Amino acid sequence: MVGGGQGGYIGWVHRLAARLDDCYEFVAGALSSDEKRALESGRALLLDPSRIYTDYRDMAAAEAQRPDGIDAVAIVTPNHLHAPVAKAFLEAGIHVICDKPLALSLAEAIEMRDLAQRQDKLLAVTYTYSGYPMTRHAKELAAAGELGDVRFIAVEYVQDWLTEPVELQGNRQAEWRTDPTRTGAGGCLGDIGTHAYHLASFVTGMLPDKLSADVVSMVPGRRVDDHVQATLFYESGARGNLIASQIAAGEGNALRLRVYGTKGSIAFDQEHPDFLWHTPLNGNTVRLTKGRAHSPAADHAARFPAGHPEGFFEAFAQLYRDAALQIAAKLENSPIPAASAWLTDVNDGVEGMRFVEAALRSHAGSGSKVTIR
Amino acid sequence: MVGGGQGGYIGWVHRLAARLDDCYEFVAGALSSDEKRALESGRALLLDPSRIYTDYRDMAAAEAQRPDGIDAVAIVTPNHLHAPVAKAFLEAGIHVICDKPLALSLAEAIEMRDLAQRQDKLLAVTYTYSGYPMTRHAKELAAAGELGDVRFIAVEYVQDWLTEPVELQGNRQAEWRTDPTRTGAGGCLGDIGTHAYHLASFVTGMLPDKLSADVVSMVPGRRVDDHVQATLFYESGARGNLIASQIAAGEGNALRLRVYGTKGSIAFDQEHPDFLWHTPLNGNTVRLTKGRAHSPAADHAARFPAGHPEGFFEAFAQLYRDAALQIAAKLENSPIPAASAWLTDVNDGVEGMRFVEAALRSHAGSGSKVTIR
Amino acid sequence: MVGGGQGGYIGWVHRLAARLDDCYEFVAGALSSDEKRALESGRALLLDPSRIYTDYRDMAAAEAQRPDGIDAVAIVTPNHLHAPVAKAFLEAGIHVICDKPLALSLAEAIEMRDLAQRQDKLLAVTYTYSGYPMTRHAKELAAAGELGDVRFIAVEYVQDWLTEPVELQGNRQAEWRTDPTRTGAGGCLGDIGTHAYHLASFVTGMLPDKLSADVVSMVPGRRVDDHVQATLFYESGARGNLIASQIAAGEGNALRLRVYGTKGSIAFDQEHPDFLWHTPLNGNTVRLTKGRAHSPAADHAARFPAGHPEGFFEAFAQLYRDAALQIAAKLENSPIPAASAWLTDVNDGVEGMRFVEAALRSHAGSGSKVTIR
Amino acid sequence: MVGGGQGGYIGWVHRLAARLDDCYEFVAGALSSDEKRALESGRALLLDPSRIYTDYRDMAAAEAQRPDGIDAVAIVTPNHLHAPVAKAFLEAGIHVICDKPLALSLAEAIEMRDLAQRQDKLLAVTYTYSGYPMTRHAKELAAAGELGDVRFIAVEYVQDWLTEPVELQGNRQAEWRTDPTRTGAGGCLGDIGTHAYHLASFVTGMLPDKLSADVVSMVPGRRVDDHVQATLFYESGARGNLIASQIAAGEGNALRLRVYGTKGSIAFDQEHPDFLWHTPLNGNTVRLTKGRAHSPAADHAARFPAGHPEGFFEAFAQLYRDAALQIAAKLENSPIPAASAWLTDVNDGVEGMRFVEAALRSHAGSGSKVTIR
Repeated sequence: MVGGGQGGYIGWVHRLAARLDDCYEFVAGALSSDEKRALESGRALLLDPSRIYTDYRDMAAAEAQRPDGIDAVAIVTPNHLHAPVAKAFLEAGIHVICDKPLALSLAEAIEMRDLAQRQDKLLAVTYTYSGYPMTRHAKELAAAGELGDVRFIAVEYVQDWLTEPVELQGNRQAEWRTDPTRTGAGGCLGDIGTHAYHLASFVTGMLPDKLSADVVSMVPGRRVDDHVQATLFYESGARGNLIASQIAAGEGNALRLRVYGTKGSIAFDQEHPDFLWHTPLNGNTVRLTKGRAHSPAADHAARFPAGHPEGFFEAFAQLYRDAALQIAAKLENSPIPAASAWLTDVNDGVEGMRFVEAALRSHAGSGSKVTIR
Repeated sequence: MVGGGQGGYIGWVHRLAARLDDCYEFVAGALSSDEKRALESGRALLLDPSRIYTDYRDMAAAEAQRPDGIDAVAIVTPNHLHAPVAKAFLEAGIHVICDKPLALSLAEAIEMRDLAQRQDKLLAVTYTYSGYPMTRHAKELAAAGELGDVRFIAVEYVQDWLTEPVELQGNRQAEWRTDPTRTGAGGCLGDIGTHAYHLASFVTGMLPDKLSADVVSMVPGRRVDDHVQATLFYESGARGNLIASQIAAGEGNALRLRVYGTKGSIAFDQEHPDFLWHTPLNGNTVRLTKGRAHSPAADHAARFPAGHPEGFFEAFAQLYRDAALQIAAKLENSPIPAASAWLTDVNDGVEGMRFVEAALRSHAGSGSKVTIR
Repeated sequence: MVGGGQGGYIGWVHRLAARLDDCYEFVAGALSSDEKRALESGRALLLDPSRIYTDYRDMAAAEAQRPDGIDAVAIVTPNHLHAPVAKAFLEAGIHVICDKPLALSLAEAIEMRDLAQRQDKLLAVTYTYSGYPMTRHAKELAAAGELGDVRFIAVEYVQDWLTEPVELQGNRQAEWRTDPTRTGAGGCLGDIGTHAYHLASFVTGMLPDKLSADVVSMVPGRRVDDHVQATLFYESGARGNLIASQIAAGEGNALRLRVYGTKGSIAFDQEHPDFLWHTPLNGNTVRLTKGRAHSPAADHAARFPAGHPEGFFEAFAQLYRDAALQIAAKLENSPIPAASAWLTDVNDGVEGMRFVEAALRSHAGSGSKVTIR
Repeated sequence: MVGGGQGGYIGWVHRLAARLDDCYEFVAGALSSDEKRALESGRALLLDPSRIYTDYRDMAAAEAQRPDGIDAVAIVTPNHLHAPVAKAFLEAGIHVICDKPLALSLAEAIEMRDLAQRQDKLLAVTYTYSGYPMTRHAKELAAAGELGDVRFIAVEYVQDWLTEPVELQGNRQAEWRTDPTRTGAGGCLGDIGTHAYHLASFVTGMLPDKLSADVVSMVPGRRVDDHVQATLFYESGARGNLIASQIAAGEGNALRLRVYGTKGSIAFDQEHPDFLWHTPLNGNTVRLTKGRAHSPAADHAARFPAGHPEGFFEAFAQLYRDAALQIAAKLENSPIPAASAWLTDVNDGVEGMRFVEAALRSHAGSGSKVTIR
């Protein structure tokens, strides 16, 4: 693991998620760019002292040499380090699991993708919400034509934690996430807008070719955007409506997706992830429930039967499990198991950066329609 | 009543709504532009034969003359007749209650407003959803500052009844509502987009000054738009996101409003109208319930205690009740009772037309930002 | 109408409900046992002075004589007067629509039933909640075998309006409803327990043959019960669980029914009456929605399409409409229209009294199992 | 761990739950009573061969001797082995974490409790649902007097997995859970009835002194009960209504609790565990949400902020975490940390057995009221 030292949050999530399904052992880390903190964090986590690193480059080099070197590294640093760290490990021949957004720019993301391909290594990107049984079931329904031709996609990711200028009040998360040098050009756009954009394309299998966007900062003094609205234009004529907001007072972590087609619609709400609502045209709404709505994809991603709630943590763990399945296959030169095929990877990361850059371009042009890809 | 003859639907709603609270007696009508149908409809409703008219102009003239002539007329014709009928009755000195959208064009709407003012007559416009106790309570909360400064308004009105080309399959409602000569330039835009736009402004007391809109027709061969997305720009810097769609497979009559401010947010869903959800910033969500959440405006609009569901019909009746209170005040030259002050009228109708025209203008300019007012 | 004078509540509900569907004209009344109030109430409602009565016996006699005499009377007095008033009108050959509970005792109820049969007059009893489209649809599903053999029925009717001793604090409703001489032996039991008991039998078509019950008063000084729990035993071996409580702090008017069979289950909640939840065994839950879930019974009882909420008032009106259909058929000597067949009548009222008496008998025997019928 | 070998389910849950919060290392096991399966299961889980046992007695003896012997054992066998295994380990001086129900009889449970006390060892019992942040918050609200005096408790635990005679169709879970020799006298009663009973007493801090119960088997040929209804009588005069059913077609794992007091009420539904609904008398309902409704108990049991769903697995892990805190305190002779005080233990297990035996006694007496304690 690179990043994730003491005082952080997401490193802990990654470590636990990796361990949930018994697919990983945590053996080495460059846990902080601060030397002292890196050492202390490594000791606190009971790492073998010889595998506590203070520089990720040293770690990549050393682990690549060791006979018992790591198979994969998890990158949980602030965004600006994703690219350099990933490159170091990919070049050392080590698989990478990287937090999102993938990079600071589309160019950087494309470079990473090309490198991963050349090295034939996995570069997974943790779009957490694609790990739920019910988002995977939604994808399966859409792919099976249950919705007909998609006409309208409404997706939103709304939170309230930046309603007030907490970055000026000692909130460390807020500090780096509103600092353009560490978070990238898009604040809310990159942080959660990319999740919304990804979930819409994950479920429908559709990517828009144009968009128009309004990307604003509502809180005086904030250095990055905290509220985004975009209209997405698909080649088929379908439309998307995307909202990402971190100033939506009263909202927790509300990623909500609806897809309307010629034959029916589905609705998903991340805060109630065991359920997916499906309404066939002219029919009654069905509440598809984890453990009752069966499909290979949903069953693969569920751990408990119906009525036993699973959550954020299990979704996260699912990505790690799928990455493990793919890495094991690569190590053994066997084909990637079908069950793990829906793992989100560097291609999703690239599309996310495309979205961020297009949205900023549109906003700079006063919300004009711009080409995404 | 003008319009509302046999075979129609909305005329029946108006008649029952008017009667619910015992404020009106139904005594005269020009119920159809088709003479035979006008006569038969009048007889079926047991009208005095001398007060069954075959032309609304005759009715306006005759009723104005009668000592027991009507105090008010309800206009429930297709949209293109709203303006001429309203003018005839206003000129005859009779109060008007008109279905929405008010007119075919903004110019026409403004003319109607000016005429109503000159004649000092009420020209109420039935924006039904402002008649619910909980939308009125929402308005009261916003006005009392409970939400702080409004930053983001999300409003949508989604239905599925035009998902298929039912106007070609004998659906009479669909026929006239998708015929630009009878419904006006905006199809879905005028039919339900105006409701969404109105509810947002009703609750917040805010009107945007700019918008950018995408106004499309998804069903091949349809002559009016059936899907609309718009970004609303308020002078304060606040943003609105408006969706109106009649091809949202699986949706019934889903008018949903959320308002996010610096201090909290509210959410309302017309399909569950006894409830209003309020979340103070950093607090827990409160489900405000009709009969438990008291305010003068909510109490005035409720008929039953908590737990006794009220619906569409009662909201509609509320507008008629408020119109009756205002008309009675005008007849008696007394001030308008405070309780009835939130009745929607010609000014709301004018704003609705402003929205329709601005949205069409923006769409014609490829979604560019245009000035509304 | 007998009862329903100024200051009351339920009389107003009955009058409006009767009028909603245009089936009744309100022409005569003995609106209060207090002479002055009877006269004033009649005048306020614009009755013909010759048809304002101060004694219900005079009214029965006089209306029976008039060529334009009433076809039916609505009884909305406190419970202890239901029987004498009904008898007077039935004997005068006038159809009766009576509020529930039907009588003060089972013996009285049976007498009323026998009289109505002898006179061949309708004696409808307003079990309001059987008038909803979705409770009728539930009945249809059960009758069609969609639930298989019923094994477990859970029904509850919980309110909070008697959580405190409001009968001592000037609440008139509470005064008579907690006065055993006016309300009957069962307080909460008769007032809402009978509704719960009725809804369960209405939907399933099943009546239990035994029960054991706990019937208590939680509020110090209260003269009637305010909390009831009962286990119902059906001949088939099925079980029921019935709760009626008026001290359930925080509840409005929550009548909730669930029926579990060998093939599936349904759930209904009166506070969300447009919806019925149906889960087939091993399947996913379907939210059946008024206007989308079609059956003759549901369609007959709905006025608006899906997404247009209907409520308590419309359910009440439905009973009046069905009574009108049955009375018209009797007046014309034609068979009762199938659509109106689910109107609740004196037989339901008799069963309600059977339940009340059995519950009190069981409680007197320390909750022992007693025979109901 | 004793029990939990290959092919089982609950052993896996316990192992993962124990590991989630990094408080346990899994080092030894007697994983099956079948020798071959015990060995294979131990190897599959990578246990040190010297610590794979084929008899739990050997394991207790050996581990007690080893300097690196286990601190605690998890018992995840069928119910009939809970007592003998627990005794073996307690006598060997090893702390015990035991699945519920604690024992086959009250006498056995009391013996276990006395032994644990004599040995001064922890005997935790995994009443999973008391591990949720929101059930703990509910307990805190009740204890703080927010509900006033409790008058009515409605608790139910309904499932559908035994709607059909699956024990005859090869379902191994169903086989042992419907076999009275392995599951104990109460089937559904012990399996889930005890959970319902426990949650009610956990949250309110109240235990009833009498009950009357109906305990039946609905599925022909089934050897244990699958449906239970009970009325609970509290010394204060309060009443409880308890339902436990495994033939409730369409239900997953629905443990639902409501508590009504003189000042307000709360409602909790295990299938939506991040939420707790609280209604103050005469107020509006508040949806208390994990991460927004703060109390020491809720905060201690939550891992993620609001909007990040947690589930069954995290609740289970919470019990293991609290057990670890208590065991660590005992090992260090320090006082038990306050945060862990709500861990459910042998006393809860004893009360559960008391309930089972009282319910069976009442049922044998035709549902008569019996004394519980």
